[in-house]
Amino acid sequence: MPLHGKHLIAGEVVGTPGEVFQAMNPSSGTALEPGFSEGCEADVDQALEAARAAAPDYAALTNAARAAFLDDIADGIIALGDALLQRAMLETGLPEARLAGERARTVNQVKMFAALVREGSWVEASIDHAIPGREPLPKPDMRRMLVPIGPVVIFGASNFPLAFSVAGGDSASALAAGNPIVVKGHEAHPGTSELVAGVIAGAVQNAGLPGGVFSLIQGRSHEVGLALVRHSASQAVGFTGSLRGGRALFDVAHSRPEPIPVYAEMGSINPVFVLPGAMQERAAEFAAGLTTAVTASVGQFCTNPGLVVALDDPATGRFIDTATTSFGASEPATMLHAGIKKAFAAGVDALGAAANVSQVATADTAPDSGKNEAAAILFMTDSDTFRENEVLQREVFGPASVVVKCRSKMDLLDVARQLEGNLTATIHGSESDLAEYAELVDIVKTKVGRIVFNGFPTGLEVCPSTQHGGPYPACTIANSTSVGTAAITRFARPIAFQGFPDGALPPELQEANPRGIRRLVDGDWRE
Amino acid sequence: MPLHGKHLIAGEVVGTPGEVFQAMNPSSGTALEPGFSEGCEADVDQALEAARAAAPDYAALTNAARAAFLDDIADGIIALGDALLQRAMLETGLPEARLAGERARTVNQVKMFAALVREGSWVEASIDHAIPGREPLPKPDMRRMLVPIGPVVIFGASNFPLAFSVAGGDSASALAAGNPIVVKGHEAHPGTSELVAGVIAGAVQNAGLPGGVFSLIQGRSHEVGLALVRHSASQAVGFTGSLRGGRALFDVAHSRPEPIPVYAEMGSINPVFVLPGAMQERAAEFAAGLTTAVTASVGQFCTNPGLVVALDDPATGRFIDTATTSFGASEPATMLHAGIKKAFAAGVDALGAAANVSQVATADTAPDSGKNEAAAILFMTDSDTFRENEVLQREVFGPASVVVKCRSKMDLLDVARQLEGNLTATIHGSESDLAEYAELVDIVKTKVGRIVFNGFPTGLEVCPSTQHGGPYPACTIANSTSVGTAAITRFARPIAFQGFPDGALPPELQEANPRGIRRLVDGDWRE
Repeated sequence: MPLHGKHLIAGEVVGTPGEVFQAMNPSSGTALEPGFSEGCEADVDQALEAARAAAPDYAALTNAARAAFLDDIADGIIALGDALLQRAMLETGLPEARLAGERARTVNQVKMFAALVREGSWVEASIDHAIPGREPLPKPDMRRMLVPIGPVVIFGASNFPLAFSVAGGDSASALAAGNPIVVKGHEAHPGTSELVAGVIAGAVQNAGLPGGVFSLIQGRSHEVGLALVRHSASQAVGFTGSLRGGRALFDVAHSRPEPIPVYAEMGSINPVFVLPGAMQERAAEFAAGLTTAVTASVGQFCTNPGLVVALDDPATGRFIDTATTSFGASEPATMLHAGIKKAFAAGVDALGAAANVSQVATADTAPDSGKNEAAAILFMTDSDTFRENEVLQREVFGPASVVVKCRSKMDLLDVARQLEGNLTATIHGSESDLAEYAELVDIVKTKVGRIVFNGFPTGLEVCPSTQHGGPYPACTIANSTSVGTAAITRFARPIAFQGFPDGALPPELQEANPRGIRRLVDGDWRE
Repeated sequence: MPLHGKHLIAGEVVGTPGEVFQAMNPSSGTALEPGFSEGCEADVDQALEAARAAAPDYAALTNAARAAFLDDIADGIIALGDALLQRAMLETGLPEARLAGERARTVNQVKMFAALVREGSWVEASIDHAIPGREPLPKPDMRRMLVPIGPVVIFGASNFPLAFSVAGGDSASALAAGNPIVVKGHEAHPGTSELVAGVIAGAVQNAGLPGGVFSLIQGRSHEVGLALVRHSASQAVGFTGSLRGGRALFDVAHSRPEPIPVYAEMGSINPVFVLPGAMQERAAEFAAGLTTAVTASVGQFCTNPGLVVALDDPATGRFIDTATTSFGASEPATMLHAGIKKAFAAGVDALGAAANVSQVATADTAPDSGKNEAAAILFMTDSDTFRENEVLQREVFGPASVVVKCRSKMDLLDVARQLEGNLTATIHGSESDLAEYAELVDIVKTKVGRIVFNGFPTGLEVCPSTQHGGPYPACTIANSTSVGTAAITRFARPIAFQGFPDGALPPELQEANPRGIRRLVDGDWRE
């Protein structure tokens, strides 16, 4: 399947002659063919004006047709077969099994949103009937539902080249809500992006939709991303990546004449609290689990457990001893791209150079820098140092974690209180631990979006109860999730119809409920 | 009931000696006793640190206790009796009947949120059970619900001294969600604010809650408001007022190290489309309805119909003739305060000076400037002028409206397409109009939060289906409402519990459903 190396704008292959960039094979350092066009303002304008023009037709599509369109995308991704996995392997250094799993997640997410749209109740329809004779004033008929917001700009993430890239969770939820999307492909995997973009553009064509429903713009400059956010047609932004990148988009979006929301998931350190009973019972088991979690996909998950908080006691000493062995036995592996490797090395250096922070374990095998490899590494410090040095609250994206030893329960709770916003917190404890440390749950509830008990935060389950988001700096909009069915509401807004004739209402709000959805009618939920 | 003229911070009467300000009786121009303390940084810090400290205890309150606390506030407002109405009349110039109605709405809103909290399903509880044997990976138990976000800063609005002030919709929804609040009282009605604040502080004490659950800070400087938004303990902001004021708070909130959401409702021009069939059938009736809507409360509603769009035909001529008479017969009335009157005069002057905009009607009786009166005024222009002069898209807060005459259906639809974000749009039409102008509904759906058919946008019904919000510049966060039960979700965020023992879960998520609330269980809604 030859790659054209251009943008895909509203169904057309577009590429301004001029600057090109190439993907790099991170495990060999060699450039991959072909060259890809660098996006410019004209590309951005073309894509977003096409999206603006396509928005009414796409919003007017029936739910059945919109769901079929999404299913077509899912089927098309599978139909790409091995070619997709092979290109993604070349561009990301991720192993085939991981990418096959991620493809399954991607397809399942798209189908999950298709099912949500087909069923239809996600629009939160609500009806309050008129009471013409009410005193002192008649009550009007009022009906409310969610409607699409318009073109959404989505940034592909480097660490999920399928599940949070061109047809990832942000794209699927924005399309499901009824909005055209313009995707800025991540510069580390432009070939993977092009392959998936071809599938979406094909599905747009199959469904007879205007091409502007979907565009992919390639590029590695920050400027093209900022131009997408600045464009007057953009109505919202979805982003998964670094705090610096997310905040830059957020600041640009809010300085527009008409500000738009930026749903940025910017990672976190995901503290893991190991309470004394659990440490006493299973220090070695915890060490093994932590090693697996920290090294999975070379630590390149937003939910990587980057902080372990425990009491300074003999059981914690046993955990450290076991972790020293298991971190030592771990194999260095290739990171996604040179930029991530460089940032990881800088983060590790900063931790290593921090006063009162010591390295306790790393892989026995030295990483091969020619293969862009990183080795898992474990640091240790004390609670006072954690409180004093804000470097310890900064995410180091990759296979690193820091153990913070606390003097007492009070000290451990105080460390919890010092935490910034995080995606997750994890508590390992016995039942009696949990009773004794009930306050810990109350504290972390104010800090995170998901609390895991006796597990690890990596390997997020995608389901209606999923919450993937948290207070700043984990996310820009804490009352949203980027994973799970609830992600769709980011890209919709409520509208009320007052006193409308039944026939002029959207089917979701018509009296006979022709869509057969769950609705709140005069304060009662009805199927 | 003597007024102390101080702030009420965490249950204490606090007032730094120094600068004071006084409310003015707008209908006489005389200053009202007593002087009120001007808030300073120290007051802001004291209130928000107390709110931060009170947040855990208040969040932990049972739903029954929180609902009882809200009901106690509602009862306390009624118990203030005539003293509240008399002070509000003196400070706002609004007539007693209007204020009595607003008091009823205020109390009903607080009770509505109490009922919502008592019932409990608003937390959107969702449960996905574990499937330990699932391949390739076990499915963990995941449960999700909304939790409070922390201290909320609320700005009292001048045009609703009760319903969107100290115990107004923003306060009631933030308290109902489980958050302490710090209210910045509007400088035009500090006495009214103090009376209601005393009720809330009393209810805090009755419930045995920490005083930091509620504070009122008085002041007229912008600086005290900005300091409230900047304070690190503030987690969200509720505001109803001008575009300039709302945007200033929004910009400050987003330039914080940790940005917070600003739910600002900033008014709009609320276009009213009168389609040819309706104009033909009832030009005079429409003129009478418009006059009532424009002059109600001296036009001082965010939903005041400031724009009328119709075809340039004989029926529209008849409407203008009738409106000339009814506007002429309307009585000038006292505006809320001198600042609003000044801004209204400036807005009217700008319209009067605009090229191709003509005044067609105003009250025959001249307004008495000694009584801070404004006279209703109606302007007329054509569609080309509307498109070219952006002054015509700016809200003139007060009893003014502009008729835009269009050449054709196409021209009218084009005017609709030019509209900025608005709270509401209204369509007057016959059934055949609605069929012929179906596209108009599709256009305005992308522009507003509520569409009214054959009615007027003023007199908003408060119910579950209410949507009071819209795209910028009407609001800063279009997918929220500041009126109706759904307003509560602005001040809550989702959190997921993964793999938790049943006993450690909040009651809303426990297996036996002890709260008896509606929950989404494994994808099915259950009562």
